[in-house]
Amino acid sequence: MSPAEVQAYLHSHIPISAAHGITVVRAGPERVRLAAPLEENINHFGSVFGGSASAVAILAAWTWLHLRLSARGWTGRVVIQRSEVNYLRPTTADFEAVCEAPDARNWERFVSTLERRGRARLPLYTTLLCDGEETAHFEGDYVALST
Amino acid sequence: MSPAEVQAYLHSHIPISAAHGITVVRAGPERVRLAAPLEENINHFGSVFGGSASAVAILAAWTWLHLRLSARGWTGRVVIQRSEVNYLRPTTADFEAVCEAPDARNWERFVSTLERRGRARLPLYTTLLCDGEETAHFEGDYVALST
Repeated sequence: MSPAEVQAYLHSHIPISAAHGITVVRAGPERVRLAAPLEENINHFGSVFGGSASAVAILAAWTWLHLRLSARGWTGRVVIQRSEVNYLRPTTADFEAVCEAPDARNWERFVSTLERRGRARLPLYTTLLCDGEETAHFEGDYVALST
Repeated sequence: MSPAEVQAYLHSHIPISAAHGITVVRAGPERVRLAAPLEENINHFGSVFGGSASAVAILAAWTWLHLRLSARGWTGRVVIQRSEVNYLRPTTADFEAVCEAPDARNWERFVSTLERRGRARLPLYTTLLCDGEETAHFEGDYVALST
């Protein structure tokens, strides 16, 4: 799927992603990169609302895992079990959320458990960037459930 | 401020709160109770998107602290430093986010530090409820900064 196709999928199936103004900059096996404007996500102090930062980070990691599993022909569901965001500094302009692939060993262990048990958990990490600086760091535990 | 006034303030100053369809059910010194519909926050599986659950929980606690400090005539800013959500089960219908006041001792210590140093941190907790059951639990560290 191209970034435009992934974006259309997100806006259609998780409609609040359109309200956040999310665009898909990159959607590959190595990383997913989402962009979001300040305007739709602004708070009363002119910076990005923490809830928006959290939502965009959660979506970046979910999208990476969903695409990576879909590419294997897997058709179960991916749910989030735990999310944590550390806000390092205010996000004062348009921003990006980048989720990088986990290392190959963790990925292989996750896939192996999923195939064996029909259920596996994977921690994923997303970095929020604004003007080239990291403004928040997200980690989440995602659970894939075979159907 | 009445719940309707708080809601108008949130929709105006944090506009994504209107996109989430948030209504203010209660906004008092003991608790803030926000409601949000499934429809605006739905995901591809027909339940609430984890990012929306997180955003509504973050907003409930922020609103409680903002109102409680404003009632004292305080005019600084409240920012979130860390957020964590544990998702217990899918939220499959309209839901509520309830932030309860911390115990009096923690509150007094927070206010005393803020008055003395112009900066203080307070942990707050929000429960997400759907059909009377807790579906997620949020805790966040908020920092008040005098201006």
